[in-house]
Amino acid sequence: PEYGHTAGVEATTGPLGHGFATGIGMAIAEKMLAAKYNRPGFEIVGHYVYGIVSDGDLMEGVAAEAASLAGTLELGKVIYLYDDNKITIEGSTEIAFTENVRARFEAYGWDTRQVGDAEDIDALISAIREAREITDKPSLLMVRTHIGFASPKQDTPAVHGEPLGAENAARTREKLGVPGVQPFTVPAEVKAYFAEKSKIMAKKRAHWDDLFAAYQKAHGALAKELTGRWESGFRVENDELSGIFFDVIQTSTREASGLILQKLSALVPSLCGGSADLAPSNKTYINGAGDFSRADPAGRNIHFGVREQAMASIANGMALHGGCVPYCATFLVFADFMRPAIRLAALMGVHVIFVLTHDSIAVGEDGPTHQPVEQAMSLRIIPGLLVLRPADALETAEAWRVAINGRKPAALLLTRQKVPVLNGFSAAIRVGAEKGGYVLSAEPSAPLAITLVAAGSEVALVLAAQKELGGMGINARVVSLCSWELFDRQSEEYREQTIPKNAPVLAVEAGVPHGWEKYAARPENILALDRFGQSAPGGEVYEKLGFNVANVVNKARLIIGA
Amino acid sequence: PEYGHTAGVEATTGPLGHGFATGIGMAIAEKMLAAKYNRPGFEIVGHYVYGIVSDGDLMEGVAAEAASLAGTLELGKVIYLYDDNKITIEGSTEIAFTENVRARFEAYGWDTRQVGDAEDIDALISAIREAREITDKPSLLMVRTHIGFASPKQDTPAVHGEPLGAENAARTREKLGVPGVQPFTVPAEVKAYFAEKSKIMAKKRAHWDDLFAAYQKAHGALAKELTGRWESGFRVENDELSGIFFDVIQTSTREASGLILQKLSALVPSLCGGSADLAPSNKTYINGAGDFSRADPAGRNIHFGVREQAMASIANGMALHGGCVPYCATFLVFADFMRPAIRLAALMGVHVIFVLTHDSIAVGEDGPTHQPVEQAMSLRIIPGLLVLRPADALETAEAWRVAINGRKPAALLLTRQKVPVLNGFSAAIRVGAEKGGYVLSAEPSAPLAITLVAAGSEVALVLAAQKELGGMGINARVVSLCSWELFDRQSEEYREQTIPKNAPVLAVEAGVPHGWEKYAARPENILALDRFGQSAPGGEVYEKLGFNVANVVNKARLIIGA
Repeated sequence: PEYGHTAGVEATTGPLGHGFATGIGMAIAEKMLAAKYNRPGFEIVGHYVYGIVSDGDLMEGVAAEAASLAGTLELGKVIYLYDDNKITIEGSTEIAFTENVRARFEAYGWDTRQVGDAEDIDALISAIREAREITDKPSLLMVRTHIGFASPKQDTPAVHGEPLGAENAARTREKLGVPGVQPFTVPAEVKAYFAEKSKIMAKKRAHWDDLFAAYQKAHGALAKELTGRWESGFRVENDELSGIFFDVIQTSTREASGLILQKLSALVPSLCGGSADLAPSNKTYINGAGDFSRADPAGRNIHFGVREQAMASIANGMALHGGCVPYCATFLVFADFMRPAIRLAALMGVHVIFVLTHDSIAVGEDGPTHQPVEQAMSLRIIPGLLVLRPADALETAEAWRVAINGRKPAALLLTRQKVPVLNGFSAAIRVGAEKGGYVLSAEPSAPLAITLVAAGSEVALVLAAQKELGGMGINARVVSLCSWELFDRQSEEYREQTIPKNAPVLAVEAGVPHGWEKYAARPENILALDRFGQSAPGGEVYEKLGFNVANVVNKARLIIGA
Repeated sequence: PEYGHTAGVEATTGPLGHGFATGIGMAIAEKMLAAKYNRPGFEIVGHYVYGIVSDGDLMEGVAAEAASLAGTLELGKVIYLYDDNKITIEGSTEIAFTENVRARFEAYGWDTRQVGDAEDIDALISAIREAREITDKPSLLMVRTHIGFASPKQDTPAVHGEPLGAENAARTREKLGVPGVQPFTVPAEVKAYFAEKSKIMAKKRAHWDDLFAAYQKAHGALAKELTGRWESGFRVENDELSGIFFDVIQTSTREASGLILQKLSALVPSLCGGSADLAPSNKTYINGAGDFSRADPAGRNIHFGVREQAMASIANGMALHGGCVPYCATFLVFADFMRPAIRLAALMGVHVIFVLTHDSIAVGEDGPTHQPVEQAMSLRIIPGLLVLRPADALETAEAWRVAINGRKPAALLLTRQKVPVLNGFSAAIRVGAEKGGYVLSAEPSAPLAITLVAAGSEVALVLAAQKELGGMGINARVVSLCSWELFDRQSEEYREQTIPKNAPVLAVEAGVPHGWEKYAARPENILALDRFGQSAPGGEVYEKLGFNVANVVNKARLIIGA
C-alpha cells in the first residue's frame, strides 16, 4: 500500500519528541517561504506554529536538539504550551525529570513565561498574545496542568494508560458541572461557539483568496512559482541532468550528487535542506543559495548542527508544511540516529530526500563506528521508503530524478570513494535505472552462465569480474539493482527477463547478506559482509574483506562449477 | 567473528554524544556498587568518571538525555571537560549552536565552572579539584580551547578533518618550542613524568589489593559476591527457571519475562536496569530491590525517563564498568531510538540485555506508530547481536537464560498479548530452544509434507495450523526459530535435520519478509507483512492482516499443491 496523510491527520506525533521537532520544521518552512514570497502589502505566507508538548516530549533528545536549533534560528512564530502535569507512566516526574525546564529553554534562547493554571483560559489567552509579540525567539508557555483533571484519578499515572471506566467518567462529569450528559455529547454553547468561529475563519480565507488574486496580478512570476511549490508541481526530465558527466572518467557518487544538486536546485525551487554538520563531506551545499538564518531567512541551505534525529524530523515538518521538498544528509551509518524520523516519513508518505553518503566499509580510516554494514538493508526493510543505491554518477542523476518526481520519501546511498562513470553504458542506464534493476551489461553470447547482481560501488566490481569471466569463456551478465522497491514493482515478465530463473545468480554487496536470497535464491550465492568493518584505508578494507575481482570470479566459478 | 573490547580501547565513542552517555552509565555503576559493597573503612569501589566532551557531543540529543538524568540522579563523581573550541565541520558554532551551554547544564542540576584557557594547566587542576568536592552534582568544566592549537590552521574547520601536512606540522612544532623534533618522539621530561606516575599508581594499586584482602576477611560474603560480579561469574541453569509456568495455560511473554526477572534477580546479583518510562508495560521492575536514587543508591531499578537512546548508551557504560549486567526496556518499535547504542553494544561485545516488548501489530489500538513491523529484522541484521523472539513463557525462560549466560549483547522480543504456554512441548523446548531453532512438534507421520517455521507469537498460530492440516491428512512439522543467530551457528547436519531441504517450508512472522528466504527458499513460501499496521484492537489487526489459522492452512496447501 501507499502511505500518506489522507485521513485528516497531517502529522503523526506518536513517538514522543517528534511532534516537537516536526513543528520546528513547519516554522522553518513558513519563515523561508515568507521571506522569499511575501511582498509589501502581500503577506501571503504568515502563520504561527502552536503545539502542546508533554514531559515525555521534553525528555526526548530529539526535542532537545530541535529546541536548541530553533533558538539559534530565532523562530519567533513557534509557540509551544508545556503540558506540565508532573506525571509519567512510571510515576511522578520527580523520579526521572527534576531539571528546570524553563531555565533550559531560556538557555536555548527561547522566550518562556509561566501560566499558573491550565483552567484559567484568560491567562492562557494573554500569555499566547504576549508570546506572539516576541518575534525573534520561539516561546514556551509553562502551563501547570493536572492529568485526568476533575476525575477521581486526577494526578495519577493510572489516567495515562487505562480507561477511566463508566463510573469514574460519570463522577468526572458531575465534578465538571455537567452531570448526566451522555458521552460524546457536544453542548449547545460549544456548538454555537464553533459555528461562529467557522464563519470568522471562512471570511479570513476569502480575504486571503482576494489577497492572493491581487498578488498574482502584482507579482505574477512569484505567484506562479509559489503555486508550483504548493502543488509539488516540479518534475525533472531525464535530459535535464544528463551530460554533466560526459567527460568524467571516475568520481564518487557523493561528488556526483553534489554537482547534480546544483543543477536540480535551479530546476526545483522548492528543493532546500542541509546536513548534520557534514555538508563538506556529504556535498549537499547549494552554492549561492544562502544560509537559512536570521540574516538570510530565504536561504536554502540549513545548518542543522550535529543533530541527526531532529534534522530528519524537521525535514518531515517542512515537507508536511508544503512548499518545500527538503533533503537532509549525514553519513549512512548515522541513518541509525534518524531512524525514528525516517520511519515516520515513510508512514506519513512525505516527500523528504535522505542523502546518505559514505555508504560502505570503503569509508576506511574512521573505522567500524563510521562504516555502515547493516544500514542499507535496515532502510530497505522500512515499508514505503524508496531506497536508491546508484552505481555511478549517471545512476545518481537518475536516482535524484526518481526521488524528486516520486513525491514520496526516498533515501540516496552514495559512495565516499571514486567509482568509474559508466558512460559506455549510458543507454542502458537511461532506460533501466528508473526500473530499479536492469541489465547493465549483457552476457557476451548465449547461453547465459551466471547473472552478477550488484548495487552501488559493487557494480563496477562485478563489471570487471564479468570481463575476466568472459576471458575464460564464461558468459556472465551484469544487473545493476539500484532499488529493490522499484524493481519489485515491475512485472513478473520484466523481472524474469532481467534475472532469469534458469541461470544461477551471484549477488554482491558490501553489506549484510540478509534479504539478498530473494534474488540470489541461495545463501551460497551471495558475496556480502556479515560482520563489522575494520580500521584501515578504505580500499584496503574493501579488498581484504572480499570485495576484489579475483574473489568475485572465484565465487562465480564455484557456483557454476567451472 | 566475535566482537569485544580486547584491543585496549574500553569504550568506543565514535558516534557523537554516546561517549557522554556511556560515562554516565559508568558513574551509575560506580555509585550502585559503592553503596552496596563499601563498608566503613573499606572504600572498595570509589572513582570518578572524567570525560572530554565536544560541541558535537553536546548538540546530540543522546547527551542531553543523559545529562538531564545525571542531574536527577545527582551523580557527583562525573567530571566532564567541555572542549569549547567554537568550531564544527561546517564552520563556526555560531551557525548552528548559539545556546548558553553553561546555563543549560545548570538547569539540568549540574555544577559548572569556567576555565578560561585550556593551556593554563594550574587553572584546570584547581577546577577539577573543586569539582571533586561537589558530591551531589555532576560537574561540567567550560574550557575554552583552540582547535589545531599552535598550528597555522588554528581555529579553522580545516583542522578537523584534514591532516596538517608535513610543513604545517613543522611550523606547529616550532611555535610550541620544540622545533626539529621528529614526529611521535616522547620528550625525556614527559617520559620521566609518566615513569614517576606509574610508580605512584602501582603503590595505589598495591594499597587497594591490601584493602581488599582485609575486606575479604572482614566481609567475606560481600567480597565473594562482588568478585563474582566483577568476573561475570553468574550462570543460570535450566532447572532454576523451569516450573514457574507449570500451571499456567496462557500468558504474554512480557508477563512471563517479568516473573522470570524476579527469580533471576535473586540468582544474578549483578542484574539491574529499568525502562524508558514503560516499566509497568515492559514488566521490568524488580520487586523489593529499590529505586536507584539519592535516597537509595543501592537500588537496582533505574527510572531512565523517556530517554531510550541515552538509556541504551548508559546501559553500555554500566556493562563496560563491570560488576553490572544491565537490562533496559522499551517497546520494540522504539528500538529505533536505541539503534545507535545497540550497534555500539554489538561492536563492543558488551553484556547488555535489551528487553523489547509489544513485539508486533498485535499491539493494537496505539496504531502503526507503536506497532513494530520491520524492527525484529532490523535487529537480526546487526552483526554480533543475539536476537531472541521466544514463542511462549517456557521459551522466554530459556531466552533469558541464554542472554544471561552468553555474556554478549542480546535482545529479547516479547509479546504484549497472551499466548499459550506450551507445557505439552516442554521437553522439546528444554533441549531445543538454546539451539535457536528446533522441531517443536514433529509431523504426525512420515513423509514430511511441509515444515512450518515461525517465531514468537506466530508459533502458536502454526501449531494450530499443523493440527488442522493433520486433520486433512497433511503431515506438517512445526519448527520454532526463536533465534536466527543461534540456529545459524549449529552444524549443517543439525540444521538439515531440523528444516530438511527436501520438504517445502512455510515461514510465518508478523513482520517484514526480508531475509526469511534463507529458510523458506522462495518469497512465495513466506507469510509475512510488508506494510505498516493499522489502528484497531490487537487481535483484530493480527487476524485481518493475515495471521489466522485459515490463512496459514491455505498458504501451506497452495505450496504443496494439496
